[in-house]
Amino acid sequence: MREYRVGIVGAGGAVGQEMIRVLEKSPLPVAELRLFATERSAGRRLRFRGQEYVIETTDPERFAGLDFALFSAGGGPSRQLAPEAVKRGVVVIDNSSAWRMEPNVPLVVPEVNGAVLSEKGAYAEAKLIANPNCSTIQMVMVLKPIHDAARIKRVVVSTYQAVSGSGHKAVVELEEQTKAYVEGREAENQVYPHQIAFNVLPHIDKFDETGYTAEEWKMIRETQKILDDETIQVTATTVRVPVYRGHSESINIETDKKLTPGEAKKVLAEAPGVVLLDDPPVNLYPMPITAAGRDEVFVGRIREDFSVANGLNLWVVADNLLKGAATNAVQIAGYMVEKNLL
Amino acid sequence: MREYRVGIVGAGGAVGQEMIRVLEKSPLPVAELRLFATERSAGRRLRFRGQEYVIETTDPERFAGLDFALFSAGGGPSRQLAPEAVKRGVVVIDNSSAWRMEPNVPLVVPEVNGAVLSEKGAYAEAKLIANPNCSTIQMVMVLKPIHDAARIKRVVVSTYQAVSGSGHKAVVELEEQTKAYVEGREAENQVYPHQIAFNVLPHIDKFDETGYTAEEWKMIRETQKILDDETIQVTATTVRVPVYRGHSESINIETDKKLTPGEAKKVLAEAPGVVLLDDPPVNLYPMPITAAGRDEVFVGRIREDFSVANGLNLWVVADNLLKGAATNAVQIAGYMVEKNLL
Repeated sequence: MREYRVGIVGAGGAVGQEMIRVLEKSPLPVAELRLFATERSAGRRLRFRGQEYVIETTDPERFAGLDFALFSAGGGPSRQLAPEAVKRGVVVIDNSSAWRMEPNVPLVVPEVNGAVLSEKGAYAEAKLIANPNCSTIQMVMVLKPIHDAARIKRVVVSTYQAVSGSGHKAVVELEEQTKAYVEGREAENQVYPHQIAFNVLPHIDKFDETGYTAEEWKMIRETQKILDDETIQVTATTVRVPVYRGHSESINIETDKKLTPGEAKKVLAEAPGVVLLDDPPVNLYPMPITAAGRDEVFVGRIREDFSVANGLNLWVVADNLLKGAATNAVQIAGYMVEKNLL
Repeated sequence: MREYRVGIVGAGGAVGQEMIRVLEKSPLPVAELRLFATERSAGRRLRFRGQEYVIETTDPERFAGLDFALFSAGGGPSRQLAPEAVKRGVVVIDNSSAWRMEPNVPLVVPEVNGAVLSEKGAYAEAKLIANPNCSTIQMVMVLKPIHDAARIKRVVVSTYQAVSGSGHKAVVELEEQTKAYVEGREAENQVYPHQIAFNVLPHIDKFDETGYTAEEWKMIRETQKILDDETIQVTATTVRVPVYRGHSESINIETDKKLTPGEAKKVLAEAPGVVLLDDPPVNLYPMPITAAGRDEVFVGRIREDFSVANGLNLWVVADNLLKGAATNAVQIAGYMVEKNLL
């Protein structure tokens, strides 16, 4: 069986660290692993499948010889380094937002649109594949089976996003603010513009002149690209909550064809990678503590929206660092290996 | 100037305590104050406008002679005790959900529909007035001016509700779970069916056979009653977040007439009791920490919803114990005093 030489760029970050763990647990045969990060993390040693590896500083020359690389180095570094990797014959699976909306870059959630990678067409033999935004991935995982069953016309989504989506520093900030509260001290904030402990911020990423944040536009545009349907209307309000891990989403869906809650539950129960947790009488519904550490997307509270002819409300939770980032990236690699695209 | 004899029923609870504070700060002339609660709180002494009062056990005989009573004793006690007070000539302003949807009981947010109290008609000379649900009050405060300007057709709302809405025990539960987390202990839960610290629960009040919670139905039905328009379609998803004080709401509105974000900001800036906080470039938007301890309703993130012809998204925050409960109840009394209805 063929073994792969794999690079991880941004190995010191919150998502990079998860990429290493997810890759380790995956069935992917790894012949060689090269870990890249900034000066700050370089030199750190870690074990992967029983062997010790050292994180190197990111030098494009060292990409040579890799089969593929998982990038989670942020938009700026990715814009600079991904082309360097591709130039050296390395397939890049990039977690940043840098390349997602490029017309010739496939934006992939394997269970939803993995097929675009093997189709002849715009994306044929793509060497750079974009991993969608965390909040988009878990949403399209449930939209896709509903879209296939009843054609989605419009989506209104409000999110409840965990601080780990802003990286390790934000996790520390919530921890520190929580401790300060318990000890009766004043809370300090550096990562977020306001206190996040025991508070809610309707603000993720930068605002633009429309009053929307970049995070909200990602949910709108990436959803249309992944579902390959620009007629799907999406509006989003993205909100940070004092949760460490696991993004939640309240999703309102209007479909073309009527889909009863029972029918929606059936198609979602059968959807790959989706776990139906929907039994309100016994308080069963997805929560961040349900999804943390899990690779699947959890859905519940599926019910008819009586305010329109063909409406549904549902509640979706996933681990933003796993299916929302690292797991999906490794699954893209797995899909390409399986289809002999790597 | 006439002075009033006022009773507070449920004076030991989270809302009852706020009612005392709000009444104290209000301009209402109080000749006599009688505080009622269960055995557990009876005997407690507290000061009100420089005088000491003792909480009594709730005995309907002692309601006699009061001009009005603010009730916050829960649905069951209210169903039993409110008629006893009314029978004795006491006007009851009730914070429970017991009477809100009764056809002959006015459901009032003074700035929105206070006029129903002085109109001849269904509610003429009402002796029992219902205070709406906390999450409904702050929503109708912003819906009303928009409805007047452009007629609202449909509302999709997702909430981010504070634990104080479940009473003092829930506040203690979040505090205890937070401490347990900081100290590395296991979190225990009694008030909520699951951990609330660093978690999110898509579950407020009881589920019914439709899959909706009572809280969600309250937002739907109370909104239609307060705005006196059953053609307004509302769907709601109500969610508990680890915040002590201040409910937030992500509200999506579809109107009959086009209303630009600029026009919406203008009507909201002019709306009584509403404070516009909407300047994203300087990170100005309402948050629970903005609203805690304040009597007003705060609105921001007002922007066009591009997914429909006449759509708006906005974000509303208010103190659930103040405008969401105690402040509104005292304002109803104040309105009735002003209009000589008491």
